[in-house]
Amino acid sequence: MSETSIKNKALDRMKEDDPAPYYQAHVFACINERPEGHPRGCCKAGGAVRLRNYMKARAKELGIPGVRINQSGCLDRCELGPVMVIYPEGVWYRYGSAEDVDEILQRHLIDGERVERLLLTPEDGPK
Amino acid sequence: MSETSIKNKALDRMKEDDPAPYYQAHVFACINERPEGHPRGCCKAGGAVRLRNYMKARAKELGIPGVRINQSGCLDRCELGPVMVIYPEGVWYRYGSAEDVDEILQRHLIDGERVERLLLTPEDGPK
Repeated sequence: MSETSIKNKALDRMKEDDPAPYYQAHVFACINERPEGHPRGCCKAGGAVRLRNYMKARAKELGIPGVRINQSGCLDRCELGPVMVIYPEGVWYRYGSAEDVDEILQRHLIDGERVERLLLTPEDGPK
Repeated sequence: MSETSIKNKALDRMKEDDPAPYYQAHVFACINERPEGHPRGCCKAGGAVRLRNYMKARAKELGIPGVRINQSGCLDRCELGPVMVIYPEGVWYRYGSAEDVDEILQRHLIDGERVERLLLTPEDGPK
């Protein structure tokens, strides 16, 4: 999909009179748990709860303005987990360590860049 | 904030090379619980778990394409709850009944409109 059509797709969903954003960046980190041995695995088994708590605390320490770090239910990309999605841009990351979280906080949320090595595309894993 | 600046703000967060959206519409319904009698209240006390389960089941029945209905942790608009936010457009709703959910599913997610009577603005409730 081209740049223009991706942006247009998001733009198409926005209305002229929509209220301003409540958060500038809204992170949802899946912490869903599946039974041990489930073929899809789960984000919790990969340390998602600990890492999400770390991310929330670090974002607060760093004082990143307008950012909210939330836990969420199953984002249905279990095989790739732990995963998170950042809106409104709709960018997905996999992550597995505090270092990964630090890099996402610094490069994506503070510097406005992307962490290419952790970035997920729609083609990653089953839909 | 004007229409243009709201859209531009979201657009500014998107990059030319960002992957295509994984979900066309991603709904996060807060189900956070606070202790009984907490001055802020909580979404769970307003029936958020039941209503989110209803919303998920109805969305499936209706076969709305590309939509994911997730539960989330505290969205920090407790006084207004139950609340939900729909991305990438970043539109917030309060809701309190199955009828409210039906209207949001039909008018926002299927018809691409807004449910004005349930819409939240950034000025609603404490930030």
